[in-house]
Amino acid sequence: MSTATVLPVIAIHGGAGTMSRASLNAGQDAAYHTALQGILLAAQDLLARGGSALDAVSLAVDLLEDCPLFNAGHGAVFTHDATHELDAAIMDGASLRAGAVACVSRVRRPLRAARAVMERSEHVLLVGAGAEAFAQACGLELVAPDYFSTGARLEQLQRALVTDATLLDHDAPALAFATPPLDESRKLGTVGAVALDVHGNLAAATSTGGMTNKRVGRVGDSPLIGAGTYADNRTAAISCTGTGEMFIRAVAAYDICARMAYAGLSLDAAAQEVVMKVLPAIGGRGGLIALDARGNLSLPFNTEGMYRGHARVGETPQTAIFA
Amino acid sequence: MSTATVLPVIAIHGGAGTMSRASLNAGQDAAYHTALQGILLAAQDLLARGGSALDAVSLAVDLLEDCPLFNAGHGAVFTHDATHELDAAIMDGASLRAGAVACVSRVRRPLRAARAVMERSEHVLLVGAGAEAFAQACGLELVAPDYFSTGARLEQLQRALVTDATLLDHDAPALAFATPPLDESRKLGTVGAVALDVHGNLAAATSTGGMTNKRVGRVGDSPLIGAGTYADNRTAAISCTGTGEMFIRAVAAYDICARMAYAGLSLDAAAQEVVMKVLPAIGGRGGLIALDARGNLSLPFNTEGMYRGHARVGETPQTAIFA
Repeated sequence: MSTATVLPVIAIHGGAGTMSRASLNAGQDAAYHTALQGILLAAQDLLARGGSALDAVSLAVDLLEDCPLFNAGHGAVFTHDATHELDAAIMDGASLRAGAVACVSRVRRPLRAARAVMERSEHVLLVGAGAEAFAQACGLELVAPDYFSTGARLEQLQRALVTDATLLDHDAPALAFATPPLDESRKLGTVGAVALDVHGNLAAATSTGGMTNKRVGRVGDSPLIGAGTYADNRTAAISCTGTGEMFIRAVAAYDICARMAYAGLSLDAAAQEVVMKVLPAIGGRGGLIALDARGNLSLPFNTEGMYRGHARVGETPQTAIFA
Repeated sequence: MSTATVLPVIAIHGGAGTMSRASLNAGQDAAYHTALQGILLAAQDLLARGGSALDAVSLAVDLLEDCPLFNAGHGAVFTHDATHELDAAIMDGASLRAGAVACVSRVRRPLRAARAVMERSEHVLLVGAGAEAFAQACGLELVAPDYFSTGARLEQLQRALVTDATLLDHDAPALAFATPPLDESRKLGTVGAVALDVHGNLAAATSTGGMTNKRVGRVGDSPLIGAGTYADNRTAAISCTGTGEMFIRAVAAYDICARMAYAGLSLDAAAQEVVMKVLPAIGGRGGLIALDARGNLSLPFNTEGMYRGHARVGETPQTAIFA
């Protein structure tokens, strides 16, 4: 494929879940659409100026981490011990290089730490205090652990502790500026991005705060290469969101690439198979965003909704929440 | 396939690497063959009495962890900070359930902690202090961190610190009772087991101490489902050993299953493809043990040797080190 034929594209997600009752009679989706659109425009602009897929997914996830509407970075959920533990991963489809961090609580931008692991270490995955020391040595910004805290997320933890429930995401319907369209008590929170650049390279990135009231030390699929994040120019770039343990057991992201490479499936057929059959067979709920090197996109989910959007260079960004 | 046709089998590995000069003129492989044989006999006996594949790989890895010849459990290598960080994973091919721990320093038997995560939590991967607290809550034995230390491993760290090298495994040729046949300065240390039981079920388990002088918080492929460990009755059970980061990027264990399921490759063809082509293409060195539900075995490695062996019920255990 000539590079001249590549139309760069960015796709992002902000978590999947079921429809909230509040959203049925209110136009309060607006804040989510606006946030997604702004992020898509920024990444689209970067790609239009010849920026790399790696830089596009990095920028998009930076912005998603900073947005308190989404469970990643600032606005991350609380663990059982009222701490935050953040996970992130990035992968370069051209070289199959990858980097990830898990269980970090003081790195302001976990995705940047993941990228530093990829570019500045011989490792793929660093966790906990070791990951934080590495990020600091790389000059990345560390913050006090309460930087990530928001009142809405603390309220969710307090509710979860009262009911002793381990919530998959968060349980506070009242974020400051909008009632979220997806039921926050059953939303599967993660953010992610996939991109194709003008050179025909793919990249994927994922970042998450995990589950409210989760056990300290729990790592989900997001930072695990092959499970929640994967990119290979020969097949696809994928970022997942959902019940992480099932995505790990199914090796969900890589399974899409394998079905394309070995069974000859199209991107959409492979992604649909994994999200609509493989994952439900073991109780897996959620969705993913998938992009191949020809610019084909597939954004399937088996929940009622998934915050998502995409933007091709030269076209108006598209955002959606429900099916 | 009728269960009556299944002949149970266990296979194990104790790391891959290059031949040491000392081994060229000495019969000092004996200690390794004896250790592998004893472990195979114990697991073979368990399988002969109708034991499950899960129990067989658990027993084999327990014994490998306890043996100071191998880099897992007692005899694990030291991190840069002179600590130990142990990783382990287990997967059940019948249910696709899996459990893993990473960066634990006080759990005597990391593989048992991984199994507890699988059987007694809703999670797949727990790391660090959270994993240790969970293991303790499950009644597993915790030990002082220096339980894992041996003089030989400490000497390796001291050598590595002097040269400022990050060794893939360990660098002390003089273990107490034998000069190891594989060059300890270039050995890729991990232990693992795969088994097929009389019911036709597959299981896989892997445990490791990682790399001498490794950065604190580094997690390799061993505890990552799909990378260093995978089991699915429909395809194969796999446990890997090698340069972990490359196995992660290639999703090595799951890739074998995917090539069997989607490309129709035999177990051996799929395993050879991954070990001899996919991994070398990104600089990956090491090997793996693979077993399918018909009892076919493949034990490929792209290094000069891999400590390995297998035993079918009713047959004499076979062990080997070099090609």
